[in-house]
Amino acid sequence: MKFEGINLLDVPLVCGLLSDIELEVTSQHDATSLLEGLKAGAWSVEQVTIAFCKRAAVAQQLVNCLTEIFFDEAIERARQLDRQRLACVNTELLPPLFGLPVSLKDTFAVKGHDTSTGLACYVNEPAGEHSAIAAMLLDLGAILYCKTNVPQSVMTGDSDNHVFGRTLNPRNVSFTAGGSTGGEGALLALRGSILGIGTDISGSIRVPCVCNGTYGMRPSVGLVPHGGTRELTVPGTDGVRSTVGPLATTLRDCALFLRTVMQAGTWRYDSNVVSLPWKNVKRKERLRIGLVEDDGVYTPVPPVRRGLKKAGDLLRMSEQVEIVPLTLPNVQDHYEDLLSYFTLSGSEHYLEQFSRTSEPLVPSLAAIGLLSKPASTLESFFALNVRRAEATRTYLRLFLENQLDAILMPAAPHTALPWDTWTSATYTGLWSYLDYPAVVIPVDVVAASDLMDDPGRAKYGPNDTELYQLYTGPERYEGLPIAVQIIGYRHQDEELIATAEMLDSIINGEP
Amino acid sequence: MKFEGINLLDVPLVCGLLSDIELEVTSQHDATSLLEGLKAGAWSVEQVTIAFCKRAAVAQQLVNCLTEIFFDEAIERARQLDRQRLACVNTELLPPLFGLPVSLKDTFAVKGHDTSTGLACYVNEPAGEHSAIAAMLLDLGAILYCKTNVPQSVMTGDSDNHVFGRTLNPRNVSFTAGGSTGGEGALLALRGSILGIGTDISGSIRVPCVCNGTYGMRPSVGLVPHGGTRELTVPGTDGVRSTVGPLATTLRDCALFLRTVMQAGTWRYDSNVVSLPWKNVKRKERLRIGLVEDDGVYTPVPPVRRGLKKAGDLLRMSEQVEIVPLTLPNVQDHYEDLLSYFTLSGSEHYLEQFSRTSEPLVPSLAAIGLLSKPASTLESFFALNVRRAEATRTYLRLFLENQLDAILMPAAPHTALPWDTWTSATYTGLWSYLDYPAVVIPVDVVAASDLMDDPGRAKYGPNDTELYQLYTGPERYEGLPIAVQIIGYRHQDEELIATAEMLDSIINGEP
Repeated sequence: MKFEGINLLDVPLVCGLLSDIELEVTSQHDATSLLEGLKAGAWSVEQVTIAFCKRAAVAQQLVNCLTEIFFDEAIERARQLDRQRLACVNTELLPPLFGLPVSLKDTFAVKGHDTSTGLACYVNEPAGEHSAIAAMLLDLGAILYCKTNVPQSVMTGDSDNHVFGRTLNPRNVSFTAGGSTGGEGALLALRGSILGIGTDISGSIRVPCVCNGTYGMRPSVGLVPHGGTRELTVPGTDGVRSTVGPLATTLRDCALFLRTVMQAGTWRYDSNVVSLPWKNVKRKERLRIGLVEDDGVYTPVPPVRRGLKKAGDLLRMSEQVEIVPLTLPNVQDHYEDLLSYFTLSGSEHYLEQFSRTSEPLVPSLAAIGLLSKPASTLESFFALNVRRAEATRTYLRLFLENQLDAILMPAAPHTALPWDTWTSATYTGLWSYLDYPAVVIPVDVVAASDLMDDPGRAKYGPNDTELYQLYTGPERYEGLPIAVQIIGYRHQDEELIATAEMLDSIINGEP
Repeated sequence: MKFEGINLLDVPLVCGLLSDIELEVTSQHDATSLLEGLKAGAWSVEQVTIAFCKRAAVAQQLVNCLTEIFFDEAIERARQLDRQRLACVNTELLPPLFGLPVSLKDTFAVKGHDTSTGLACYVNEPAGEHSAIAAMLLDLGAILYCKTNVPQSVMTGDSDNHVFGRTLNPRNVSFTAGGSTGGEGALLALRGSILGIGTDISGSIRVPCVCNGTYGMRPSVGLVPHGGTRELTVPGTDGVRSTVGPLATTLRDCALFLRTVMQAGTWRYDSNVVSLPWKNVKRKERLRIGLVEDDGVYTPVPPVRRGLKKAGDLLRMSEQVEIVPLTLPNVQDHYEDLLSYFTLSGSEHYLEQFSRTSEPLVPSLAAIGLLSKPASTLESFFALNVRRAEATRTYLRLFLENQLDAILMPAAPHTALPWDTWTSATYTGLWSYLDYPAVVIPVDVVAASDLMDDPGRAKYGPNDTELYQLYTGPERYEGLPIAVQIIGYRHQDEELIATAEMLDSIINGEP
């Protein structure tokens, strides 16, 4: 490929299309500090909105990360908010996300715009009403300005489809930006967005975080309203459910999103939520963290091992963390059951949607083989539920008996991969299967010293060996992000964030 | 029937088997005040335990409400707790339910005792470990001393089976004590228990409350640990799930139970809970209550109409409540879908359990006809889920658009009924289908003035007319309790309790 290895991260800075203040607004803040500035009047909402629209437009031309683009609406709303601010006697009365630009994965319905999710059969069918999270973000004062790319089927690690094409990884355009929230990941990496909202059913938020070096969180199912999100499965499908969560440039922005949403009465927006209150938990003095080196299915490649070791060593050296080596039971079995949940209705429903416009499978969808699985029965579904209930009991015991505050492990056995080779998600899928919240934090990038090593090291069978050998050394991979995953207990998402903030500050320094 | 109409409520008082102090302990307190006395040392735990064991033994001989009886264990534990109390320097350090006797529905496993649920095939199979709620209650300091009777199949309104026989209604032995938590209801009515724990999947807590004039609550699914409860459905069955809740003699005792459990970290006991924190919400100054006169399926009989009118009038007269007349949409359809959820796997699994010992159906099980429904498919299950999701959206809108704090309606269209005639549960089942929490409070008893009226008043079809005509006037029904139901929004169980306490104090006076 001619553009092999091209890194586009700096183009927005040098292209000359953004003013100094636009570069400052988009480069030097996270959502939390941007919000402070917006409320304090450091910039107008319009100014900030235009800055992100411009940078998103640049990002779009570089890596093809956007789907629906509605900058005009956003700027119009920004002006309204500026007028609201002028009329406001007390800035504390401004809505919590006042003027903050937020980008959304294409799966969320935004009134007046398509929710095609990159399927030709849904093109030119503008949504009649907002999805729950879009409505909620607007009520909270946010600015919606664009939606972002996904894979055909919203199920693969490559955000590639026949409507919008493929999103590239801005650090290396011959690598995937991840999926299914890959457009968000790439847009965030180029800082065309400060806060992106995705969904995750087996890693769809966390995989793009790994690929793009962003922070992100898979909340427990139901904590963030999911109503009005387009799903390509048979309506009413139950079992493992998709969850809505943030991608951001700092962990405190993930906390900002979750806290703001949870404090705002999610139950009013979606009849199916788990409306947990935000408790303002205090950070603990000391943490017990289970350290998992690999999941027993795939062996982490050298840079990922180095990144995890670096994180573990830093935590061990601190006074605040006790590390407990941990082995995860039965991940392979659980992952197979997860795939069975995903294919309860077989592939017919997917294929029917593709066939309406005769669109072929994109390569990544063909590669994962998910659509060759047969449909299931009610009996098999109940049997899956029995096995999952048993697994949740086992993992609860693991947490309790080891008195864990969280588990630290790789977010994937590898970094971003070349196009269409990300075919498995055991590291992230396990926690979707169990419905445990998980945070991804970047810890390093691939260095020149991260040499390829003996494939014999991959000891979990031929699939492991094959995946392991994708890492060919720093020549192709240097500079790609290395990420770890921090997993907490189900519904204790706030506690997980508090734990992850402490770990992140030890590993990456105070923000 | 020779014993037609016999009322046994006063027998424990006059039988001479309980001492004055035992009568005081069992008659003149609710769990909240008993607990205060226990912690303050007004009585020893042993004294209180023996009092309830004795009264439960009397109740058992009167109405056959118990299944497993383990008084010896209870008294032994009571002595241990008394020793613990002696060694305790600060009574505030005593566990929250210190020394409180709690009875459990037979479906909860208690180590060392059967969980037969009245099925012969499970007799003499003592549980190897406690169910989650039994373990939790013990950790909280409660005394477990007996389990209580249920219907064969745990699905009917008559607690009658071939292992333990039929539980009678202590107010009128030819009437049902309700089901499926009917043993608890009868035991509570006779004050052989001060706090009983049941399960409810379509009214199994609320129906016995109606029949026995007790308070009770169906919490939202998952708030109280359900792990280790015997279910007779196919393992892994999903859809509408059973929930664990209290039956008590006051509403504040229902609050006591829920608060204590929710504050104690339910997630440690069950990997499947929704571990909501208790928030100590403040009571509102004013409430908006939706008043539902009937559910559009069954017409309430005269005493139930009078009881609801009395409650509504008292609330209207108070300064604190605004009443909004309300009609519930599509209850019949939703109830049919609820029954479809219950019969996803058809009847084979039930019948197989009965056939192991060749036990025939009890009359109430034959009467409800549930076991003649065919098994379903995964497609039909998903279709049920779609309809239910739509219904939850509709009911959320109903709550929001009317700005309701709660709905007030009958808990059933009738009072307790003669044996084996309670064949429907639309009034309670709707809220199970939607997973809304509901509280039952008694408001009156059938009076001599509650005459039978024109069956033409039952305008919802032949089933309605038939059920309506079961009410033959005060001759048979006088003295039976009349109850109403107060329904709150899903997962806002604490808010519902606060609302119900305010309504209860207006309707029934301060406790």
